[in-house]
Amino acid sequence: MNFSQRLAADAGLIEARLLSALEGRADQPVTQAMRYAVRGGKRLRGFLVLEGARMLGVPEARAVSAAAAIEALHAYSLVHDDLPCMDDDDLRRGQPTVHRKWDEATAVLAGDALQTLAFELLCDPALGSAEVRMALVAGLAKASGIDGMVLGQALDIAAETVGRALTLEEITALQAGKTGALIGFAAEAGAVIAGADPDPLRRYAAALGLAFQIADDLLDVTGDEVQAGKRLHKDARAGKATFVSLLGLEGAQARAAALVAEAEAALACYGARADNLRSAARFSIERRA
Amino acid sequence: MNFSQRLAADAGLIEARLLSALEGRADQPVTQAMRYAVRGGKRLRGFLVLEGARMLGVPEARAVSAAAAIEALHAYSLVHDDLPCMDDDDLRRGQPTVHRKWDEATAVLAGDALQTLAFELLCDPALGSAEVRMALVAGLAKASGIDGMVLGQALDIAAETVGRALTLEEITALQAGKTGALIGFAAEAGAVIAGADPDPLRRYAAALGLAFQIADDLLDVTGDEVQAGKRLHKDARAGKATFVSLLGLEGAQARAAALVAEAEAALACYGARADNLRSAARFSIERRA
Repeated sequence: MNFSQRLAADAGLIEARLLSALEGRADQPVTQAMRYAVRGGKRLRGFLVLEGARMLGVPEARAVSAAAAIEALHAYSLVHDDLPCMDDDDLRRGQPTVHRKWDEATAVLAGDALQTLAFELLCDPALGSAEVRMALVAGLAKASGIDGMVLGQALDIAAETVGRALTLEEITALQAGKTGALIGFAAEAGAVIAGADPDPLRRYAAALGLAFQIADDLLDVTGDEVQAGKRLHKDARAGKATFVSLLGLEGAQARAAALVAEAEAALACYGARADNLRSAARFSIERRA
Repeated sequence: MNFSQRLAADAGLIEARLLSALEGRADQPVTQAMRYAVRGGKRLRGFLVLEGARMLGVPEARAVSAAAAIEALHAYSLVHDDLPCMDDDDLRRGQPTVHRKWDEATAVLAGDALQTLAFELLCDPALGSAEVRMALVAGLAKASGIDGMVLGQALDIAAETVGRALTLEEITALQAGKTGALIGFAAEAGAVIAGADPDPLRRYAAALGLAFQIADDLLDVTGDEVQAGKRLHKDARAGKATFVSLLGLEGAQARAAALVAEAEAALACYGARADNLRSAARFSIERRA
């Protein structure tokens, strides 16, 4: 299978795992909202888990709960980000956001329970020994909490009150938390499950995460709202500093391309086995959504 | 040490563990809000962890990260419960709620990161083998997610739109999730850490959790706002069904007392070693806050 076939197949596996994890739960609006929130999306984070594991000899079935955990964590962050007190978004993946389709209380609770579900999924014995699962729990907690994703969000909020545009260094730190930490954990998770050295995947993910965010900023300027399935041009309207406002359109494109080359180079030790991960890096800056 | 001395000493240990876990994190409003949210409170859930562990021969130092984890989880639930879209409370433990002292976005993020912190705390190797820590992660996830605490919250929200007062059975199910699940996990955690049979503590906690909630309903009617440190008489004003509205004041008191007797009886196999846990059960219905 080539990269785009793999991405689609893995998205199906991950969605099935998420929906099976939500089966048999109480039939409440909050449960319906959780199911709604985990549907769709590119599943790039989940793919990174599965592809990293595959490359290191671990079959999908053993790693899929970790891929689903990352996607549940990511889904929680989107539901809470979209809240009126945060980004106040009405549209996500081309559909009404959870608080628009239900209400704010349901969105808060569904996000809360999706975070819990992420840690619950990491308890799946299929992932390996208790030591392996504990390493995944510790890694996900570090990547998503106050040292990682939430810190990125906090820096983003603080940026709105700082009274000046952020510097390139500050935006890089912000994005390293907001999207980089979780992408980094996703890329390393396969190595953790396989019991292999996570260092090459860590370097790959650091470059990929930043390239991914620069591509997001480019998409916000050059993208199509229908294809993207969400509101665009928000950053420019809000007068926010972005990689594009700081580097210019061509400068941002060049920087993203250089980061993709860096991500590809980090995989040299794996030879052709890493071709799908190389394609994922290129995809991260060529996507339209 | 008698029960109230133990409760106070344990509260100190737990607060110190929480604050040390939050040391060295980025200095942001969300981190300050997390520190603020984990201060104070009775720490009954954390005490149950430490006392269960002590009774079974495990020193506090080995169990304190699990006690801190439960209190971080509890603190997250309070911060999110207090939000305008949930209970819309201005006062908690006699102080402004997080969204009143900071803002809603900070309260959402601080709650989110406190949940993550709870799972991070369970990674502490002092708690025991990876198997023991995984059992704690699985137990906390089950108690706090869509099968436990969040389900209780969801049932509480649903109750407001059902158009009739809840039955005793429905309220019991609601409270089993909302407060019972986490109290149950707290009481069992000591046995998990000690590698002992959790069954007697599980039965103790089931009775204690319900007694605790009936006492909350009684406090809402008979309590003093200054002593309680929060707004009272909300349920009556909102016309909500409670154990008091369904059983009457004396009926609710009698039911709580019977549950405490049941909780005490569940500890028979431990003899005098369980005296502090018996006191905790009595305390749960005699408290003024």
